[in-house]
Amino acid sequence: MLSTAIPLFESADVKGHFWTICRYCVSEKLLTYCGVASSVTVLNSLGIEAPDEPQIYPYKMFTQENIFPDAVLHHRRPLDVEKGGNTLEQLASIVSSFDVQVDTHFADALDEGGCRDVLVAALQSSDQRVIIDFNRKILHQTGSGHFSPLAAYHSGEDRFLLMDVGRYKLPPCWVKAQVLYNALTGVDLTSQKSRGCLIITPREASTSHSQS
Amino acid sequence: MLSTAIPLFESADVKGHFWTICRYCVSEKLLTYCGVASSVTVLNSLGIEAPDEPQIYPYKMFTQENIFPDAVLHHRRPLDVEKGGNTLEQLASIVSSFDVQVDTHFADALDEGGCRDVLVAALQSSDQRVIIDFNRKILHQTGSGHFSPLAAYHSGEDRFLLMDVGRYKLPPCWVKAQVLYNALTGVDLTSQKSRGCLIITPREASTSHSQS
Repeated sequence: MLSTAIPLFESADVKGHFWTICRYCVSEKLLTYCGVASSVTVLNSLGIEAPDEPQIYPYKMFTQENIFPDAVLHHRRPLDVEKGGNTLEQLASIVSSFDVQVDTHFADALDEGGCRDVLVAALQSSDQRVIIDFNRKILHQTGSGHFSPLAAYHSGEDRFLLMDVGRYKLPPCWVKAQVLYNALTGVDLTSQKSRGCLIITPREASTSHSQS
Repeated sequence: MLSTAIPLFESADVKGHFWTICRYCVSEKLLTYCGVASSVTVLNSLGIEAPDEPQIYPYKMFTQENIFPDAVLHHRRPLDVEKGGNTLEQLASIVSSFDVQVDTHFADALDEGGCRDVLVAALQSSDQRVIIDFNRKILHQTGSGHFSPLAAYHSGEDRFLLMDVGRYKLPPCWVKAQVLYNALTGVDLTSQKSRGCLIITPREASTSHSQS
């Protein structure tokens, strides 16, 4: 059901996101910072205006510290995330504080085919990114709820490439679409809602997507 | 001379290091931390026993903070690196504090073919890694002295894949071997010696390499 084998990458047909996710991917700095690390990766990869980062001035980048400017702090503090991580909607509220549109999909509102369609369509778009909220147990991994970006899809194998932000723990791996769907549809005990995914689009590009 | 085009990756013939460097690559947290970020990337990718990292306990990983345990601090402090970065030998002294053998190659002691041979042989070995110390100006990049890991070689194009740890600044790029050689042979004004590369091997594996 899982494969850490990399050769699939060369025959994968939807992999436009991979290189930019690979360039910007960071390891979660705390066990509960998977959503924060995924957001930092995705926002940097979209080229969204980042907060100032004095240590690399005049360059800028999102980091797991500066992703909490005032606009985020007033509803979500680092301490809150450290304690219990984020639910899908809480992470959406952080990410949407920046110059992006965030579409939140609860997986239990989709069937398996519909879920695949949402993920593949986003992976095919050069100006969208995908963060999933999944149950690690379904993937036979240690842990439970976890966020990470997806970076590619292999239609022949019907597998998604998961770029785990727990990089000290697991390498990128190819997950069967059916298994991924099961991992997305579990209930998050904190929110009492289904897990799912965030589709993130720069605001500038989101108008054309909503018109198409 | 430079190419940020990614399609070369698929036809590259020496790319075994790429996936592990990609998994562990970090952005330098300070403009002078390129050597530190490169070392963190490489040490994590070799699976060397990492210092404790309380925030992700029970997991461990090298970070740009914990790469300065006592064994490093007594000869090289974060403040020293913050002020002026590292020379090739200073970086070797940090990395060799861990469970690896570090071979330091000054590029001016090699001709272009010899330099290529050293780099390609290391990239072909599953238990070695390569960090280069180069002059960005020769690559028409902003800045001067800089460290980053190499991750692949394309013999048809005679290009190396440079995984820049100034990730907020530049994506991975393919550099012609001849241009890279010129960038490695320049003099580092701090050391008054040539730049070059570090070939890093776990101590356990280094015995078999020295016997071969």
